[in-house]
Amino acid sequence: MNQLKLHQKLQTFLLEDIGEKDMTSQTIFSPNHQGEGLFLAKESGVVAGLAIIKETYHLLDSKINIQYQVRDGDVVKKGDVLAKVNGPVSSILTGERVILNLIQRMSGIATLTKKSISALSDSSIQICDTRKTTPGLRMFEKYAVTVGGGKNHRFGLYDAVMIKDNHIAFCGSITQAVKRVKQQLGHMVKIEVETETKEDVLEAVNAGVDVIMFDNCTPQQVREFSTYVPGHIVTEASGGITLETLPTYAHTGVNVISLGYLTHSVSALDISLVVNM
Amino acid sequence: MNQLKLHQKLQTFLLEDIGEKDMTSQTIFSPNHQGEGLFLAKESGVVAGLAIIKETYHLLDSKINIQYQVRDGDVVKKGDVLAKVNGPVSSILTGERVILNLIQRMSGIATLTKKSISALSDSSIQICDTRKTTPGLRMFEKYAVTVGGGKNHRFGLYDAVMIKDNHIAFCGSITQAVKRVKQQLGHMVKIEVETETKEDVLEAVNAGVDVIMFDNCTPQQVREFSTYVPGHIVTEASGGITLETLPTYAHTGVNVISLGYLTHSVSALDISLVVNM
Amino acid sequence: MNQLKLHQKLQTFLLEDIGEKDMTSQTIFSPNHQGEGLFLAKESGVVAGLAIIKETYHLLDSKINIQYQVRDGDVVKKGDVLAKVNGPVSSILTGERVILNLIQRMSGIATLTKKSISALSDSSIQICDTRKTTPGLRMFEKYAVTVGGGKNHRFGLYDAVMIKDNHIAFCGSITQAVKRVKQQLGHMVKIEVETETKEDVLEAVNAGVDVIMFDNCTPQQVREFSTYVPGHIVTEASGGITLETLPTYAHTGVNVISLGYLTHSVSALDISLVVNM
Amino acid sequence: MNQLKLHQKLQTFLLEDIGEKDMTSQTIFSPNHQGEGLFLAKESGVVAGLAIIKETYHLLDSKINIQYQVRDGDVVKKGDVLAKVNGPVSSILTGERVILNLIQRMSGIATLTKKSISALSDSSIQICDTRKTTPGLRMFEKYAVTVGGGKNHRFGLYDAVMIKDNHIAFCGSITQAVKRVKQQLGHMVKIEVETETKEDVLEAVNAGVDVIMFDNCTPQQVREFSTYVPGHIVTEASGGITLETLPTYAHTGVNVISLGYLTHSVSALDISLVVNM
Amino acid sequence: MNQLKLHQKLQTFLLEDIGEKDMTSQTIFSPNHQGEGLFLAKESGVVAGLAIIKETYHLLDSKINIQYQVRDGDVVKKGDVLAKVNGPVSSILTGERVILNLIQRMSGIATLTKKSISALSDSSIQICDTRKTTPGLRMFEKYAVTVGGGKNHRFGLYDAVMIKDNHIAFCGSITQAVKRVKQQLGHMVKIEVETETKEDVLEAVNAGVDVIMFDNCTPQQVREFSTYVPGHIVTEASGGITLETLPTYAHTGVNVISLGYLTHSVSALDISLVVNM
Amino acid sequence: MNQLKLHQKLQTFLLEDIGEKDMTSQTIFSPNHQGEGLFLAKESGVVAGLAIIKETYHLLDSKINIQYQVRDGDVVKKGDVLAKVNGPVSSILTGERVILNLIQRMSGIATLTKKSISALSDSSIQICDTRKTTPGLRMFEKYAVTVGGGKNHRFGLYDAVMIKDNHIAFCGSITQAVKRVKQQLGHMVKIEVETETKEDVLEAVNAGVDVIMFDNCTPQQVREFSTYVPGHIVTEASGGITLETLPTYAHTGVNVISLGYLTHSVSALDISLVVNM
Repeated sequence: MNQLKLHQKLQTFLLEDIGEKDMTSQTIFSPNHQGEGLFLAKESGVVAGLAIIKETYHLLDSKINIQYQVRDGDVVKKGDVLAKVNGPVSSILTGERVILNLIQRMSGIATLTKKSISALSDSSIQICDTRKTTPGLRMFEKYAVTVGGGKNHRFGLYDAVMIKDNHIAFCGSITQAVKRVKQQLGHMVKIEVETETKEDVLEAVNAGVDVIMFDNCTPQQVREFSTYVPGHIVTEASGGITLETLPTYAHTGVNVISLGYLTHSVSALDISLVVNM
Repeated sequence: MNQLKLHQKLQTFLLEDIGEKDMTSQTIFSPNHQGEGLFLAKESGVVAGLAIIKETYHLLDSKINIQYQVRDGDVVKKGDVLAKVNGPVSSILTGERVILNLIQRMSGIATLTKKSISALSDSSIQICDTRKTTPGLRMFEKYAVTVGGGKNHRFGLYDAVMIKDNHIAFCGSITQAVKRVKQQLGHMVKIEVETETKEDVLEAVNAGVDVIMFDNCTPQQVREFSTYVPGHIVTEASGGITLETLPTYAHTGVNVISLGYLTHSVSALDISLVVNM
Repeated sequence: MNQLKLHQKLQTFLLEDIGEKDMTSQTIFSPNHQGEGLFLAKESGVVAGLAIIKETYHLLDSKINIQYQVRDGDVVKKGDVLAKVNGPVSSILTGERVILNLIQRMSGIATLTKKSISALSDSSIQICDTRKTTPGLRMFEKYAVTVGGGKNHRFGLYDAVMIKDNHIAFCGSITQAVKRVKQQLGHMVKIEVETETKEDVLEAVNAGVDVIMFDNCTPQQVREFSTYVPGHIVTEASGGITLETLPTYAHTGVNVISLGYLTHSVSALDISLVVNM
Repeated sequence: MNQLKLHQKLQTFLLEDIGEKDMTSQTIFSPNHQGEGLFLAKESGVVAGLAIIKETYHLLDSKINIQYQVRDGDVVKKGDVLAKVNGPVSSILTGERVILNLIQRMSGIATLTKKSISALSDSSIQICDTRKTTPGLRMFEKYAVTVGGGKNHRFGLYDAVMIKDNHIAFCGSITQAVKRVKQQLGHMVKIEVETETKEDVLEAVNAGVDVIMFDNCTPQQVREFSTYVPGHIVTEASGGITLETLPTYAHTGVNVISLGYLTHSVSALDISLVVNM
Repeated sequence: MNQLKLHQKLQTFLLEDIGEKDMTSQTIFSPNHQGEGLFLAKESGVVAGLAIIKETYHLLDSKINIQYQVRDGDVVKKGDVLAKVNGPVSSILTGERVILNLIQRMSGIATLTKKSISALSDSSIQICDTRKTTPGLRMFEKYAVTVGGGKNHRFGLYDAVMIKDNHIAFCGSITQAVKRVKQQLGHMVKIEVETETKEDVLEAVNAGVDVIMFDNCTPQQVREFSTYVPGHIVTEASGGITLETLPTYAHTGVNVISLGYLTHSVSALDISLVVNM
Repeated sequence: MNQLKLHQKLQTFLLEDIGEKDMTSQTIFSPNHQGEGLFLAKESGVVAGLAIIKETYHLLDSKINIQYQVRDGDVVKKGDVLAKVNGPVSSILTGERVILNLIQRMSGIATLTKKSISALSDSSIQICDTRKTTPGLRMFEKYAVTVGGGKNHRFGLYDAVMIKDNHIAFCGSITQAVKRVKQQLGHMVKIEVETETKEDVLEAVNAGVDVIMFDNCTPQQVREFSTYVPGHIVTEASGGITLETLPTYAHTGVNVISLGYLTHSVSALDISLVVNM
């Protein structure tokens, strides 16, 4: 993650929660009353986003010291300490909720990604995310997917081309759509096209795309369609695949499986902060 | 939701997804090619956040026209049309993902809230949310809870006081903590205190708080503790209550139950956009 | 005050005054020419906002060192030193005007608040502010009121309900207006209602509001109306009360008096910066 | 005032007051309930900042219509209608406080400026403001001064040079200070120097400055010093002049008198909004 | 260009030039004095950025009407009218400089791009830009390159990989560097590697990159190296190529030539605004 | 340059180039791999903007140390080291392009300014810039002109008055236009008027302007017109003067020559970063 962007985002998030002031902790505590906080895992999973603890407290109060006990990507179990923080209790508590809301979510995504990779059990296939992320949090969520062992699909509408049914319909054919794109865009942009039939796949291969997506296809279709695609073109299965159906796509020969559920319906990993004064 | 804040947020979200441009749709379509888009429910649930369709397209392209078929709070079933949009296909597609990412999430929250109210089946108890919201989306998520029939707990650290264990420990007692707060804050701020025992509850009543939270209490404790609290003080059960355990809190006499799960681990409601050209 | 918000505000204020550069001091002084600055009271009053000296210079030039001689809330007299600053003269002068403009105003508010409390001479009544603050400076001005010994009324339209004549007229009665609000808002929001007659007051009590305002009432009315309100409901006198008429409201039994003049027509406390090189 | 900057400022001010939403009016009123609002003068004075009514409501709700009855600079008396607005009552009330807080303050400044010009009673002398403005509101307050018939001194540190005692001390003399500035700055920048003695004035004349300020001088000194300055150099009296002492500076031959009190200690002009539904 | 981003940029640019107000035109003209403005080419070239005229005036004054006479990409000659604008003269003049500064620069880039394509005279080779753009203007400048017939290289560090000498040195070899990148990044990212020798090129081919850059190579080297690269890998010549040496790279068989000079040292195309009142 | 504004600008520029992350360097290097970078001149010229190296790296990575070898305004030749930086290689490379894009441009401007002053070879005439700067970069470019020995004309529309042909036409005469401006603006604003004939010049002198511009005049006209202007009014030649024609304006007696080409069509000075690991 870009540190500058991270700072700007955390400032926005802290202002959302704190507003004019933390009415409770700024009122109760003397500003310099010291304490220790422990970020604890309350269930097993993959931790992601630990840098947020340091960056958030850095913004709130330079007198807070942070010591990490684990690193992003580590598997933790209930009771494990993720990080110790020392400093003014008031500031430790003021930052608590924003930190937890972020790293619980990110750890939930990393955990689900790792679980998906295990479920698939085919290391020749990459698991990747989609653009079905929470608005405003894409950088955080895409990073969490990589912490869990997954890869990132395109970041937005600006960094790669995805030719879908409406685009093809407007141009008349996959061939025409790809031609139109190539005439206008440079050589550093990957072009992916959605296909649904053998004919689509063969046309896409001839059109010279970089990535061919098998959209909403069964494992059998994926297996068959993959054989039509030469090695320098990447194949991707996408659409409606769940954690339950994912294993059926193992050993289909496809290169990548993209999973919307990694980010759109996340269970937060339970993490808490215990403060001792 | 405040329209000005909504506009600013949507601008941020659109810039996150579009960046310099929508490489695919801006390249494929002629700018004025017209089409119709249908926002369709793909499963049953409560719809929330429809205003986002109009506001997003208003920001992207003033030539898009929107007609709503349902309203926030309506229960929809698979196949129902939520809204029809007409205008340049390119702009309709460019805004698709941000709109869906938001209203799927908001509708998921509204649906879960309504489901929780049904599960509880005790209209004398209000269901409310917590601060366990997605950073940057609190306004959206708290609104979605109200669409589902729930109420909002405090918006942030700035609009109400919540005295927790660390605050009480620092001050020496609930009584001292409440006194300290009242000495510094004005009369327009509600003061809530966490309690765990009968003694805590009785002390809180005497201290003159506005709201008493029974923290991580069983239904039996909640039932008992509620009887110690006079009518002008609100009681709230909170902590570790799940959709499964929620019904056991019915008819305990508590006024409010707050549920972190309403916002921290949301299943998006499946909604899609179908475009006809 | 929230430090993050304070930083953002001070940046805006400094950019307003400095623009592309301080044409005079950046041109005249060599960047490292050292000097000492003394912030001096030029008349008697209550000081508020001293943190702004440190935060402003921190933004402008990390080589400036600040030593405070007094603290917020202290009463100073002509000639008292509030703070000494040492560092590059150019930067000391560049920040001068923004600092003085803010702390003169804040100290003016704190002084006026303290003067009002003295004038009232009834410690059972709280003095509080209103929303008649300078746009963009509400956090600063509300803080200054507390430094002078006053309390804060609601911060904005977002953190408490105030039901006024138009709202009541639309709903048909105080009872209906309160009901409407309670149906939609959560239990952490205080509800205040404006009343003008005995009947209004009695209706408001029955409606279960948290705060009853006696709007533009004489001390006699306030004394009478207060007797109709049970102890768990806060009473507030408001409207047209001046520093001159304030003492007549002493011992009326009301809990709170809100005073628009504390912030809307402030005399700045005269404070100056003397620089020795 | 620059419309773009005005829009940005008003957005900031509205967000400060409204936050997530106007809890009262958005809850009470149906969104389309129509009404009429009258902005009324409650005391006599010069009106300034009327454009803010239109711009604020334009940001909040495009369905509000505004008709002005007076113009900036007009003298109004108690009971005069400044503007009529028609539209959704909820939006009319939501914008009320920000509008009033601004135009009351601006009208207070315009009124005080006009009063000062009358008091001086010497049309050969211009009255102007200083940089002692409210942080964040300089554009508004400097505009209000012009509405009252005054002129603007420099806007900030960036648009003109003001050589003060510390600058002169560092350079060794007025002559050296002016030379240093002229060597570095272009020909479009006015250079003003503070003087306290006849010798200072004569040195400033020789140094070729554009404006000579007589700092904290008596009317007698101002009269004398003015005679030493040739016609193409502007003279300015400044420092400690109050509304009471101002008339003693009439007919001293000085060109400009700058008055900090015009903006630093303003009495708001009483203006209110009456809404009929 | 993304309209939302364009609006934000233009607002920033207008605030830079106008500040608090256009002292001259706002002072001289009555606000509604109407006039016509003609944007005229004063030399021959390719026009780019015309949308900026409409968007800028839309931000400044909704009463200005714009009629375009040419379109982006059109070749104009001295005296040609690019656009006619009608409306308040004051606003037409206030926006003049920002508009001209942008479209002169963009048209200069488009003109130079077209000239380069002509000079190369080999339509099998694409001309593209680099990241040597003006900070803050990349979107504008990259768009101008496409208007002139060129293509865009990557937009930033975030949308494609470019492995340079330092990266290779750190990893030990091109093979290792590419492997490292592929292990961490997803399948939608193009990977380019800089090569300087035949060995580099062959290693890059085997490493499976998407694009091979021949860095600072002579036309002879480019011709030779191109023969080592299979058709599905793109080749790019880059480094030190000037408008003068560009033709020597024609018919070398390379796919793309990237030219830093297109954006880093631009001669503005002379365009002026003539206003008739 | 104002440091606060510089920081804000650099953050914007870095976000433009880095986006979510530097895909290449953040992927290739371990975060703490140390190296040294040398900023080298690759051609002769005047260096400007060195502070940008320190400020940019300060924003990106506090662990980078910078040692300057030269200062702004120094003339460097090919091979000269401008600055050495030590720290994490990844961060050194991530900031490279933004730094180079800025200081190359600024140094190009400083070099061209110095060259122009030499070409003119008349130290009694000041060379200055115009408002023909790159949108968003005016502060940087105007600073670079001063580094090269030039002066700044007005910064924007807000800090000085420039009365041009349209303004004069609207008012009826120079005299009327100047009168109108003086009636409305304060004494700290310089007023410049464009003149084209002897009559214009004489009228401008009588109108009491501060600066008289000879617009698009030949050296002969400039020489003649200058004789009509008394010493306390500044004269400026402007319009269509190129580096080639500039020397013909030497010894014409004019005070200032303003040159649009200094900023609107800049050749970047070639500077590069060499990194050793």
